[in-house]
Amino acid sequence: MIKYLLKINLILLSTQLIAQINDSTQLRAIYTYNLTQGNCYENLRSLCKDVGNRLSGSHSAQKAVEWAALLMEKTKLDTIYFQRIMVPHWVRGKTELVSWKNKKDSIVNVNCTALGGSIGTNGVLKGDLIEINNWNQLEEYGEKLIKGKIVFFNRPMNPTYISTGMAYGNCVDQRHNGASRAVEYGAIAVIVRSMTLKFDKNPHTGSMSYTDSTKKIPAVAISTKDAHDLSEALKINNVKSLSLELSCKQLPDTVSYNVIGEIKGSKFPEEIILVGGHLDSWDIGEGAHDDGAGVVQSLQVLETFKKMNIKPKRTLRCVMYMNEENGNRGGEHYANMVRNNSEKHLFALESDRGGFSPRGFSIDGNKLQLEYLQTFKNLFEPYQLHIFSKGYSGVDIGPLKDGKLCLVGLVPDSQRYFDYHHSKEDVFENVHKRELELGASAITSIVYLVDKYGLPSSESIKK
Amino acid sequence: MIKYLLKINLILLSTQLIAQINDSTQLRAIYTYNLTQGNCYENLRSLCKDVGNRLSGSHSAQKAVEWAALLMEKTKLDTIYFQRIMVPHWVRGKTELVSWKNKKDSIVNVNCTALGGSIGTNGVLKGDLIEINNWNQLEEYGEKLIKGKIVFFNRPMNPTYISTGMAYGNCVDQRHNGASRAVEYGAIAVIVRSMTLKFDKNPHTGSMSYTDSTKKIPAVAISTKDAHDLSEALKINNVKSLSLELSCKQLPDTVSYNVIGEIKGSKFPEEIILVGGHLDSWDIGEGAHDDGAGVVQSLQVLETFKKMNIKPKRTLRCVMYMNEENGNRGGEHYANMVRNNSEKHLFALESDRGGFSPRGFSIDGNKLQLEYLQTFKNLFEPYQLHIFSKGYSGVDIGPLKDGKLCLVGLVPDSQRYFDYHHSKEDVFENVHKRELELGASAITSIVYLVDKYGLPSSESIKK
Repeated sequence: MIKYLLKINLILLSTQLIAQINDSTQLRAIYTYNLTQGNCYENLRSLCKDVGNRLSGSHSAQKAVEWAALLMEKTKLDTIYFQRIMVPHWVRGKTELVSWKNKKDSIVNVNCTALGGSIGTNGVLKGDLIEINNWNQLEEYGEKLIKGKIVFFNRPMNPTYISTGMAYGNCVDQRHNGASRAVEYGAIAVIVRSMTLKFDKNPHTGSMSYTDSTKKIPAVAISTKDAHDLSEALKINNVKSLSLELSCKQLPDTVSYNVIGEIKGSKFPEEIILVGGHLDSWDIGEGAHDDGAGVVQSLQVLETFKKMNIKPKRTLRCVMYMNEENGNRGGEHYANMVRNNSEKHLFALESDRGGFSPRGFSIDGNKLQLEYLQTFKNLFEPYQLHIFSKGYSGVDIGPLKDGKLCLVGLVPDSQRYFDYHHSKEDVFENVHKRELELGASAITSIVYLVDKYGLPSSESIKK
Repeated sequence: MIKYLLKINLILLSTQLIAQINDSTQLRAIYTYNLTQGNCYENLRSLCKDVGNRLSGSHSAQKAVEWAALLMEKTKLDTIYFQRIMVPHWVRGKTELVSWKNKKDSIVNVNCTALGGSIGTNGVLKGDLIEINNWNQLEEYGEKLIKGKIVFFNRPMNPTYISTGMAYGNCVDQRHNGASRAVEYGAIAVIVRSMTLKFDKNPHTGSMSYTDSTKKIPAVAISTKDAHDLSEALKINNVKSLSLELSCKQLPDTVSYNVIGEIKGSKFPEEIILVGGHLDSWDIGEGAHDDGAGVVQSLQVLETFKKMNIKPKRTLRCVMYMNEENGNRGGEHYANMVRNNSEKHLFALESDRGGFSPRGFSIDGNKLQLEYLQTFKNLFEPYQLHIFSKGYSGVDIGPLKDGKLCLVGLVPDSQRYFDYHHSKEDVFENVHKRELELGASAITSIVYLVDKYGLPSSESIKK
């Protein structure tokens, strides 16, 4: 009996070993293909240079939708289709001016960019300035000190976080909610320090929102260097007044599309493996890292399967979402469609943290799924991927979360992302070819493994 | 008895746990200090901008020596001293020209840089060109096809390696030995494709050497883009002849110095923990990644100990080596001094792979040392360091290898290093502040742990 069990064990072990060797060979082939013949870098060049930035509702966002469909056709995907959605249509307009007057009546101009969703100023808005470094301070100063003033939110991102995404997550509330919180105390506008750890003259935009119950006031971001200088001037009472002029405005919602392409599964076509990123971007820069990188990497997964003649068992679906930046209408609509059609998703992966050197995956799944994906970790060691831990996936695929589906985010090195994020520096030239390709290889590899072996669902836990 | 053993075990376990918690707190403090108050980034700016590039024997290399000593004084190290060495003195001169004439007699100029150590051309050298893509080809073509010609070594770095250092290591022989190998078949000069995976117009220099037995011929690097274009032109017989003019020459050896600074150990002052990099650089660019980064990170280790008031048990020694790039006289001299003085080195760490996001350490020690250092791995997980594996340390500390001493190299992300390496792009602006600081934090942390707990030597294996 012991001998028999030993034999069985040896057979199992050797089967596992052979599977590992095969997988290891296949992953090596996927990396080699992407590093030598992959098209994601040239596709990104085309998206950045031929289309450019592409805020939801804009003409160039529509151009991006056409670009995406054409590229999917070129990649010879089995099915290509659009999902029609209504998206917010905010426009920046031509005027963005922030300046302050010092005690000597000299005007100091400041690099600024309106926050997405902000109302305009309707001419020049002037006011006294009050600096706020945390929410408690806002309450402490209260209406008495704030009413009629422009509130300057100057809390910096915390440089001691190792993940800059964590630093961003812990700071972005002042950008997103600053206006709606400050207006409660009678503020007439808000100026927000840009969300970056880099000390420079680049302002970074991003979404803000108003609550239904509050009055709307204009909101603008200024560069970290300007925020620092302004704060120093305030300390020595050298700011007499601040002027702000913004021509941005919200137009009626307009039509746009998620763009979807598939390779049909050969064995379980009803089981869907999703890879995606978002096609829209902010309207400054070129949306290269955010999220051109994710979009071209996602398509590269399907292209690599096609070109390497790997026939997936499950249906591989590349989703290029619309409107992640200022509404997530694409992500919400997609998830609704999945629920309405009772589509079965096995695995959904998003790449939306920049096209940098990949470090691993953050896994938003149940314990069984997490542990299962961690068994692949050693296969990724030669490719220097080491993060296989519980964590957030992404905004686009977030609405799919249902307690069963395993959601995953690609985790690249985070140090440089917020140097470029939502600024004019987020251009193709700041994306590194090999780093982008390594990211594409990583997600192609994990999709390959999940397609080959499946993935436990929470139902299997119940069993 | 069992109860007693259990108790002992529990005590040991809890002691270990407390040590881990203390270490984890201390590492967090080290990272926080470096990310908020460390000086390495500003020190690098000063080295790059106030001193500039600093090839051994040059005036600016001497300036770098003085800069280093002054900075060590400012850091208030206990001991600061120089090691006098004789270094090669190669000068580039003013003229560097490569061009080729096509069938229509048009001249195509090529971006080039003489290889360090090359002789000049003594006027314009003209010749026919023959392309070589591997050593076998050289032998195959032989004197019959090569004699009197200029040999064009065009083997590219292999993009399928994940570590670009590996790709470099497997390709750099054609740069280093190309001239001495080609001259055996009667070549009159060599042109080498630049050692980079980036496809651009930047030529990259680097060392080459002649063997004593062979005639010397000029050697020059051209950019990858130019190498590609030249190769394409050769394929269609569109290269009539190639012209080369280099004014570089070797001058007599001259005096220079390793610069050394120490904090004396409080308990085992005779045991030395070394951290270092090299002060010299190539004479184009600013030697920012190679190896200004390593130099300022190494000093940052000692500065952090001083500023955080951590008293090391062992002597911490920062060595800024001279002449890594074209001779390693500093490294050799230092190792001789150690042997002559019977100094006891416990641990030597080199940072010389660029100031990029750190990934871990490559450990050139015995099995016991390797396994011991690997027990620290979990302490580094929050800082995203994951490589703790057997591997090469570095050129400067290499000569210290004696089978007992544990040599370690900091391993940063390698994707971008060879984009800048030995080219005019290796400037301060291409170093990322946080990435540099994270590297400094990583080496400070490992030095802290090795100082605190010691390290097994091969003697302890013998016991």
